[in-house]
Amino acid sequence: MRGLFILTFAMALAGSLASAQTSPAGTAARQWRTQHERAIIDEFIELLSVPNVSSDRDGTRRTAERVVQMFAKRDVAARLVEFPGANPVVLADLKTPGATRTVALYAHYDGQPLDPREWATPPFSPVLRDRALDKDGQVIALPAAGTPFNPEWRLYARSASDDKAPIVAMAAALDALRAAGIARKSNIKLVFEGEEEAGSVNLQKILEANKAAFAADLWIICDGPVHQSRRQQITFGARGDTTVDITLYGPQHELHSGHYGNWAPNPALMLAQLLASMKNDKGRVLIEHFYDGIEPLTAAEKRALTEVPEVDRELMDEFLLGSTEGSPKKLVELITEPALNIRGMASSRTGALASNVIPATATASLDLRPVKGMDHRRTAQLVIDHIRRQGYFIVDREPTAKERKEHAKVARVNEKAGGYNAARTPLDLPIAQDVIRAVEGARGPSVKLPTSGASVPLDMIEKALGTRTISVPIVNHDNNQHSFNENIRIQNLWDGIETMAALLAF
Amino acid sequence: MRGLFILTFAMALAGSLASAQTSPAGTAARQWRTQHERAIIDEFIELLSVPNVSSDRDGTRRTAERVVQMFAKRDVAARLVEFPGANPVVLADLKTPGATRTVALYAHYDGQPLDPREWATPPFSPVLRDRALDKDGQVIALPAAGTPFNPEWRLYARSASDDKAPIVAMAAALDALRAAGIARKSNIKLVFEGEEEAGSVNLQKILEANKAAFAADLWIICDGPVHQSRRQQITFGARGDTTVDITLYGPQHELHSGHYGNWAPNPALMLAQLLASMKNDKGRVLIEHFYDGIEPLTAAEKRALTEVPEVDRELMDEFLLGSTEGSPKKLVELITEPALNIRGMASSRTGALASNVIPATATASLDLRPVKGMDHRRTAQLVIDHIRRQGYFIVDREPTAKERKEHAKVARVNEKAGGYNAARTPLDLPIAQDVIRAVEGARGPSVKLPTSGASVPLDMIEKALGTRTISVPIVNHDNNQHSFNENIRIQNLWDGIETMAALLAF
Repeated sequence: MRGLFILTFAMALAGSLASAQTSPAGTAARQWRTQHERAIIDEFIELLSVPNVSSDRDGTRRTAERVVQMFAKRDVAARLVEFPGANPVVLADLKTPGATRTVALYAHYDGQPLDPREWATPPFSPVLRDRALDKDGQVIALPAAGTPFNPEWRLYARSASDDKAPIVAMAAALDALRAAGIARKSNIKLVFEGEEEAGSVNLQKILEANKAAFAADLWIICDGPVHQSRRQQITFGARGDTTVDITLYGPQHELHSGHYGNWAPNPALMLAQLLASMKNDKGRVLIEHFYDGIEPLTAAEKRALTEVPEVDRELMDEFLLGSTEGSPKKLVELITEPALNIRGMASSRTGALASNVIPATATASLDLRPVKGMDHRRTAQLVIDHIRRQGYFIVDREPTAKERKEHAKVARVNEKAGGYNAARTPLDLPIAQDVIRAVEGARGPSVKLPTSGASVPLDMIEKALGTRTISVPIVNHDNNQHSFNENIRIQNLWDGIETMAALLAF
Repeated sequence: MRGLFILTFAMALAGSLASAQTSPAGTAARQWRTQHERAIIDEFIELLSVPNVSSDRDGTRRTAERVVQMFAKRDVAARLVEFPGANPVVLADLKTPGATRTVALYAHYDGQPLDPREWATPPFSPVLRDRALDKDGQVIALPAAGTPFNPEWRLYARSASDDKAPIVAMAAALDALRAAGIARKSNIKLVFEGEEEAGSVNLQKILEANKAAFAADLWIICDGPVHQSRRQQITFGARGDTTVDITLYGPQHELHSGHYGNWAPNPALMLAQLLASMKNDKGRVLIEHFYDGIEPLTAAEKRALTEVPEVDRELMDEFLLGSTEGSPKKLVELITEPALNIRGMASSRTGALASNVIPATATASLDLRPVKGMDHRRTAQLVIDHIRRQGYFIVDREPTAKERKEHAKVARVNEKAGGYNAARTPLDLPIAQDVIRAVEGARGPSVKLPTSGASVPLDMIEKALGTRTISVPIVNHDNNQHSFNENIRIQNLWDGIETMAALLAF
């Protein structure tokens, strides 16, 4: 999951939830971890020290090879699945005698682009801090082996949370299960992608080219953060995603607004009018048929929503918000609805560089998040149809001089090539219930989200392999993922090992 | 006048109009010019070679001193009027025995900022070209003294048009009048400002501090281009000007649009809705009372409008426009109405840098052009009142965290400090009729515009000195003023000398 969680309020439920642990796998994981904290962190630091920005071909390959070695050390044969022009996918196939189902655990080993100048310490030189950096956390030495880590300490490095943590947690969990002699019940496949932060551009092709190798009854996606309340979260779906870029045209070049104001059409005003026609001030999208075909939430999904801890008030406080868009609906409900968001808007200049001109163009970029039952291409088309209904002549490239002169209003509209649909696995599906039981057995009551608000190409995985997907994240929400000073809270790694043990023993 | 005219269609009326010349001053100017073309251009080139960007204190002072020397050579005592922190104003006071009225001729010697890398040839190394650069004009040598210049040749340099040309034209006109023994009828003051391109920030204070020195019955503003048809233009007013910058606030920092889309208010959408509420798609401003108090055009002004050559179709073609905003009204009528223009708009990023965020802020900059009868401060206040009526809590600085949390919608609104009102001198005023007669006597029928669409601080001059203003520009509209490769068409300089001679003999 690609996301930015930046809340800093803390709820320390970990202690109270620990008592709820009933799973032998979870217990074994905790026992192993308390005895090997320093060794686990050492192995994590080794992995975090290998640069892994998606576009860094050399770094990502060395990261992939390091992951293979980590599992080889555990007698788990991992291999690199290659595809032309793509970073390799690491795949380990753990056959379990007598198992009747196969579960894939997915994480990704690549990381977001970065500017090292923004980091307090170099992104690939992991450091431990005694608390979060924005709480004035100081760099501290690793405790000696045998001395426990304070669970509120944090490890800082690119991909500490997103998404090397689950890989290390799986490795430690395998050790724990083996040490405790706990057998797996399912065949397990470990799948570590190397291009998630580059938009998973080759994933569907790689899966389709290697269907048998990647086939599973369920893919468990171990990416993204747990709930802002710090409770374990299980997410059963994600919204889809597509992008529509719109450019409107005024005069061929900027004109003096004195000489031509009131006469030359102003594309910034036209854009404001167009965007205002798309969504009202209650957050309702006004585009015809936008909400058509939405698959309603099931009774189980609706019930799950009511059980999610409400964080709206705290989030408003954190983000300095005096209102919310879809009020009185709550965040947890609003992210189950499709969204149309203006992610950027530009026309000529503002601030010190502004001058008295009629702009030549005005541009907006929209991101659209269809939900289950909607098709991302149709959703984009509805936007295009809407623009046409506002009187625009539409092109998908720069309009010609002739087109501009012949049409009162001209819009260039480009839909993103790599869009995808939403996916949602029913909570009451037996395998979904099994996942809940396994995770809660190790971690206590969880937050069950029918869908994430953010987009993950689950639909792509499901379609390519004919499988189901459920997301089980482990890291803290306030981890600075996708930004500088990415980090993981130590307790989240410890909890993650227990969660992964439960899923590996699944 | 600060403006950009970039039309390139040409109407060669100069020849036919020449026959209309009935004024001795105009005839004397033409005769002198035909005998001294090379010397006039040499003096022009000398003046253009002195750097004069308003912010260049040293260059502007040297320019001012050069102007003083130009007139000293002609036994006209010009002096520098100093004001703390300001570039000096050059003032020459030509007393005329027995004269009962005083006329000030205004131009400015400073020039627009520039980036020399954008120029085909260095901006302060004037070159002659055999036609406009965008018509593939080539650099040519100056013709020998006595060999006539082709009137379609162009001289390229910063301020060739804006606004050193009128200064050179006045100097040559003085020579011509003297050679022909034509006496002035009025006291004449020559006033050359040095900060026009920096917004005339000190002009009002300088005038008020030197009222007697600058007092005149009429100020004639020699700045800006003539009509796009190449006919001489007389402009009797200008719209006022003010700027309102608006910033709307969403979350404290950009949020992931997946996790928070539909919930966190999007300031880009709010800005679109706000701007759309201000003006409809017919160009009508929807802000309450915006059009209140407008002083209607007089019968003479309305008649003048009907006599202005229509250029709308050619301009639409040139600017690639398929429609105009205030249609079916024509440009010449629309610039007599007040304008609200979005000069810039920005929120997060578009294009390759766009990412799936809910922006933290959205900003628009508006320029407002009140007409006669409106007050610029009240106009800005109406905009602010309108924003408040849309539910915004308004501040004039960054809002505090508390303010953001306590109000559903927060807007920062800043009105420009240096706004001013429109001014319009009645066409039927005796002194206005005198100016028309003088100019048309030298140049034939002129285009008479009751007001320019662009803003000039005429009101500031009128209020400071209790005088009237009329603009008599001389340069070609297609001169690239305010941009790179500024130039003047030679015929416009020749015509300008005749126009200035008529005004000096006035």
